[in-house]
Amino acid sequence: MYEITHDTIDAAEVASKVNLPNHGASLAFIGTTREMTYGQRTVLLEYEAYIPMALKTMETIGEELDNQWPGTLCAITHRLGKVAIAEASVVIAVSSPHRAHCYEASRYAIERLKQIVPIWKKEIWEDGSEWKGSQTGPWNPLQTPQFE
Amino acid sequence: MYEITHDTIDAAEVASKVNLPNHGASLAFIGTTREMTYGQRTVLLEYEAYIPMALKTMETIGEELDNQWPGTLCAITHRLGKVAIAEASVVIAVSSPHRAHCYEASRYAIERLKQIVPIWKKEIWEDGSEWKGSQTGPWNPLQTPQFE
Repeated sequence: MYEITHDTIDAAEVASKVNLPNHGASLAFIGTTREMTYGQRTVLLEYEAYIPMALKTMETIGEELDNQWPGTLCAITHRLGKVAIAEASVVIAVSSPHRAHCYEASRYAIERLKQIVPIWKKEIWEDGSEWKGSQTGPWNPLQTPQFE
Repeated sequence: MYEITHDTIDAAEVASKVNLPNHGASLAFIGTTREMTYGQRTVLLEYEAYIPMALKTMETIGEELDNQWPGTLCAITHRLGKVAIAEASVVIAVSSPHRAHCYEASRYAIERLKQIVPIWKKEIWEDGSEWKGSQTGPWNPLQTPQFE
């Protein structure tokens, strides 16, 4: 259910992992490389991970979802290496019997991923680049997830 | 961006319609036929629509999203006819520059669809069947969408 890959992510394939007869709702969150961020043009993003811990923390997220929203199912695939504009860096698929839990659990999963999964990204602009501690920017392990 | 079909829905194809360079987040909501509902086993669902008005109200939802969350993009495909267990009856794809709006807009879109789009479903069980006014069950046009 948890994968890290250097290949293009097939969102439908990730979503299919959580397709269960009793789950009437599923949500696929797709995080893609955005061209403009506060007026700065990104050319591409490059991701690195400490893979064993990244997989382990993704599993932790799945366990947390199951604790908070029993019966939800979660699959996560994160891409590493260079990710071009509009390509997916992460796909999180969540399913549950009813949609309310599905939305809550999906939102939690992406915020939690950015908080605890050791994946770093390098933003590459036309005129430079910078490594960031997590996909959300300046990384602070004490910071709680921002849900706004 | 708005489609009604008797064929299987390709969720990835719907999601691809909202993939824009400046949109860093997209969400595909997939509503599927659930086998068990409050202890009753569904065999399949059958959908009917008043198609011109269904397409028009789907467009209205897109306009409402753009008003409330400017810059969000929305595509909706709804299936008609018989939909087997675990198959998708509706896919709603929403994208936006940042993910907070994406989640809010996606949630709004599915609730609003069940409220204003004239699509009826017949629940077919092992021992009978029943037409329902909307996918959520007893239909009341005065009822506001339930977001819980």
